[in-house]
Amino acid sequence: MSTKPKRALSGCPIDYALSVLGDRWSLLIIRDIAIKGSKTYADLLDGWEGISTNILAQRLRHLEENGVIRKRKNPANWRSSLYELTPKGRDLAPLLAELVLWGGKFNDARDPKTETYASVRSDRQGFERKILGEESA
Amino acid sequence: MSTKPKRALSGCPIDYALSVLGDRWSLLIIRDIAIKGSKTYADLLDGWEGISTNILAQRLRHLEENGVIRKRKNPANWRSSLYELTPKGRDLAPLLAELVLWGGKFNDARDPKTETYASVRSDRQGFERKILGEESA
Repeated sequence: MSTKPKRALSGCPIDYALSVLGDRWSLLIIRDIAIKGSKTYADLLDGWEGISTNILAQRLRHLEENGVIRKRKNPANWRSSLYELTPKGRDLAPLLAELVLWGGKFNDARDPKTETYASVRSDRQGFERKILGEESA
Repeated sequence: MSTKPKRALSGCPIDYALSVLGDRWSLLIIRDIAIKGSKTYADLLDGWEGISTNILAQRLRHLEENGVIRKRKNPANWRSSLYELTPKGRDLAPLLAELVLWGGKFNDARDPKTETYASVRSDRQGFERKILGEESA
């Protein structure tokens, strides 16, 4: 799937959401920023799934253009950038929780990473609040 | 994105979920069956987004292989089939609700289809129960 839709959107809210998110790599990048705490390009390149550098760069640009993430200068290293979720991106917290719950329920991998699944099941609100940036609320 | 992953899954529940769902067309097909009530191949081909017949056939096969939908003979027409969600597919109800809510909130289409957005906002439980097949509960 290309990151820029070649057709007009239908107007359906699900179609809109998928035009922004509907790509496996985009949602894995959002997961890494939201849940794993990845901040730099190097962090994101070093994910569990082995994304290639050209796909990573393309998807980051797409997510930035669609207002889901933003990039700012890294105060600790002026040659690198930090990626973070915008408020629009943080609003994906309940969707991420549902992805974790559905995936965790049906995942038949030999070595499933179930830590996040367990944490969402035991404290979904806490999981969402953390992504929403209301951890101390 | 191909429908069959070429790499091993990482074990992460989100990665698993996206390996099954993480494609715009797959989720639009699920939407059509779950929300629009599409049942036949012809219904699905006639969706808002104009899916091509080869992509539709490929994604239906992928969703069937992954246990999200199943196909049965159409009692009214032995030459056609009816597609329906399995219990695993019905369990996507909360995820679909979150896609509708996020998409509806940020959708800036000129002519947004907001009927489903309004219905999920006003009665989310009813929306989910309908997909879960507990409408009369």
